[in-house]
Amino acid sequence: MTAPGHAGDQRLAALTEQVVASFAGASSPRYRTVMQSLVRHLHAFLAETSITEREWEQGIEFLTRAGHITDDKRQEFILLSDVLGASMATIAINHPGTDLGVTESTVLGPFFADASPRAGLGDDISGGAVGQPCYASGTVRDVAGRPVPGARIEIWEADADGFYDVQRAGGPVANRAHLFTDDQGGYRFWSVRPAPYPIPHDGPVGDLLTAAARGPMRPAHIHFMVSADGYQRLTTHVFADGDPYLGQDAVFGVKPSLIRTFARHPAGVGPGGRVLDTEWSDVEFDLVLSPNRPA
Amino acid sequence: MTAPGHAGDQRLAALTEQVVASFAGASSPRYRTVMQSLVRHLHAFLAETSITEREWEQGIEFLTRAGHITDDKRQEFILLSDVLGASMATIAINHPGTDLGVTESTVLGPFFADASPRAGLGDDISGGAVGQPCYASGTVRDVAGRPVPGARIEIWEADADGFYDVQRAGGPVANRAHLFTDDQGGYRFWSVRPAPYPIPHDGPVGDLLTAAARGPMRPAHIHFMVSADGYQRLTTHVFADGDPYLGQDAVFGVKPSLIRTFARHPAGVGPGGRVLDTEWSDVEFDLVLSPNRPA
Repeated sequence: MTAPGHAGDQRLAALTEQVVASFAGASSPRYRTVMQSLVRHLHAFLAETSITEREWEQGIEFLTRAGHITDDKRQEFILLSDVLGASMATIAINHPGTDLGVTESTVLGPFFADASPRAGLGDDISGGAVGQPCYASGTVRDVAGRPVPGARIEIWEADADGFYDVQRAGGPVANRAHLFTDDQGGYRFWSVRPAPYPIPHDGPVGDLLTAAARGPMRPAHIHFMVSADGYQRLTTHVFADGDPYLGQDAVFGVKPSLIRTFARHPAGVGPGGRVLDTEWSDVEFDLVLSPNRPA
Repeated sequence: MTAPGHAGDQRLAALTEQVVASFAGASSPRYRTVMQSLVRHLHAFLAETSITEREWEQGIEFLTRAGHITDDKRQEFILLSDVLGASMATIAINHPGTDLGVTESTVLGPFFADASPRAGLGDDISGGAVGQPCYASGTVRDVAGRPVPGARIEIWEADADGFYDVQRAGGPVANRAHLFTDDQGGYRFWSVRPAPYPIPHDGPVGDLLTAAARGPMRPAHIHFMVSADGYQRLTTHVFADGDPYLGQDAVFGVKPSLIRTFARHPAGVGPGGRVLDTEWSDVEFDLVLSPNRPA
């Protein structure tokens, strides 16, 4: 609406400086820095697009709908962060990559739950979830290749229908547990073979994807979060090789280093002597932790 | 976290381009433009501040709290837009100002209600609201100085305690009405003398203001929204001269051209022959509308 050099530009610039200055008295210098940067970028976005009043109202309505659909089972703002690439951008900023072979990070997603049941090594954590049995195992190591015993691994995963347990109201805990690595840093558990699934797309984020002609699908994966004293917490996935959505993850979470083969096996005897009357799969996924940053 | 030129910067830049590209297929070119600009500015903000994962989580939590406190009486996202200067920035972009004497615009705020009662000219619209009687009058004109008859004026205002009617659960409509200008473009009504008041600050926006060491106060004002065929809708306030908060409006809404004297008068006979047994005030506020933009 505003031609370059117009009086409106000068008024906007003066307003931006006034708002930036309003954060100058923040007692936390970090808060001041973050909010002043936010204000500048927000105003620059509005100016660059010459946002209309109706469009800005629509933005407010979008956030309102996102707030109202969010509850203890559904987190639309994390989905929004995910589909705008902000979650992966935050990860790129905080885990810039090293030459030390540290396992790459990816999105936390909206389905992590703080209180998961503890599982023993080799247990079946599927809790009756729909899907083909799948055995996952690997070793947690440091960048020197030394095993990390006692590391806590949180695992969570959708079932073969594409739903996490927390999406099924009143249902049991399923495909969700934590366990600890053994003396050799090893871990192993049974769950179900992961399947591609759509992120929840019946809310405002779904409308955003539709307007962008983007799909809601995520390629098949299992979530891992690994914590151990002296190491940075690692939040990542293992992705299934060959998944048709690896190149078009709705949340931009795929990193080639995280793709593994989920090998299929006929019915028979599997790891730990488990007798399987259906096809089953296994995957090996080793994890390398980064040392804590100097304080 | 990321030194300039680090591999992390390149990964972030590649991610940003990937997310921008994901909007390329939008059927609306305008949607594509707005979202691609949003993604670039959002990622630039995250990079510039080297946002930490915990800080980004706190941002998600802030939006979640804002969503949950928002209902049909409370709009925290409008408050957020207001205190970040985004509402006034949108106004600056869409009403860049002219030399034609058009009345300046300011924030809508969160307390407008679609369905207001119709009042006759000279009516008392206070509906029993607390406060000293105040008579407001003026003329609506076009940029050539010609009166605009039949213009619809929406008026809404806080009471002397600083509350709008919609903030008092189950209370009557008060200090809120619409009326139409007469053949000479004139309007007049009785309400109450406006007082400075705090924006709702018991929610996340209040926490933001506290962290910034900013106050929640707005200087005393009456809201006007004027619509007439052939003219741009005008959303504005009249502010009371001498208010101590004129220089520190929490939402950056003050424009000097909108300040008027609210003259105080002793008990006696006021306009329209109204007999007043207390001190009362009056204010004159003329409004000039901008013609519609060419289609």
